[in-house]
Amino acid sequence: MVKLIAIYKKPEDMEAFDRHYHEVHAPLAAKMPGLVSLEVNQIYGAPGGESHLHLIAEMLFETKEALAEALSSPEGRAAGKDLMGFAGKLVSMHFAEVL
Amino acid sequence: MVKLIAIYKKPEDMEAFDRHYHEVHAPLAAKMPGLVSLEVNQIYGAPGGESHLHLIAEMLFETKEALAEALSSPEGRAAGKDLMGFAGKLVSMHFAEVL
Repeated sequence: MVKLIAIYKKPEDMEAFDRHYHEVHAPLAAKMPGLVSLEVNQIYGAPGGESHLHLIAEMLFETKEALAEALSSPEGRAAGKDLMGFAGKLVSMHFAEVL
Repeated sequence: MVKLIAIYKKPEDMEAFDRHYHEVHAPLAAKMPGLVSLEVNQIYGAPGGESHLHLIAEMLFETKEALAEALSSPEGRAAGKDLMGFAGKLVSMHFAEVL
C-alpha cells in the first residue's frame, strides 16, 4: 500500500483553517478515485514542548500507479487547486510506501 | 487513538541510516509499553519532484496518557537515547490525535 501524506504547519487563523479543511477540502480529497481511506491526525504537542505542525493527513491507495492516477484525475486536480488556495504556504506533500 | 509521529529528513548516508533504523532503532521503539502498532512509511517522492523527507514512523497508542507513559518508561528512554544518537539532527517528533 502507498500513501499520499500532507503535512500542514500551524496556520495563523486556526479556526478558519479547520473550517475550510473539514467542510471543503477533506470532502474534495475524499472524492479522489482509488482512495482506500483518508486519515487525519491532529497534532497536539511534541516531546518537550510545542509542535510547529497542525495536521498530518494520510490518503491510502493500493499502488503507486493508483495514487498517481488519482492526483491527475479531475477530482485530484480540484482538490489540489483548493489546497493551493487555502494552504499553499503551509503544506508539504509526500508519496510514501507503507513498509 | 493517538500517535507518536517521527518525521525523518533524508540522511547523508542512507544505507547506514536504514541499517541502524531497521536493525536497532525500530526494535527498541517496538518494546515501548502500551504500543498498539508501529507503522513505517518510506518516502519515495513528492508531487512535482523530490521530497526532503526519508521516513515517517507512526506509533499508535490507546490514549494520550499511555503515550506519555511509554515515553517516560525505561524502554521509551532507551529508544529516545538511541534516536538522538543516530538521527538527532534529522528527526522531529509530534503527538497527534487520530480524528
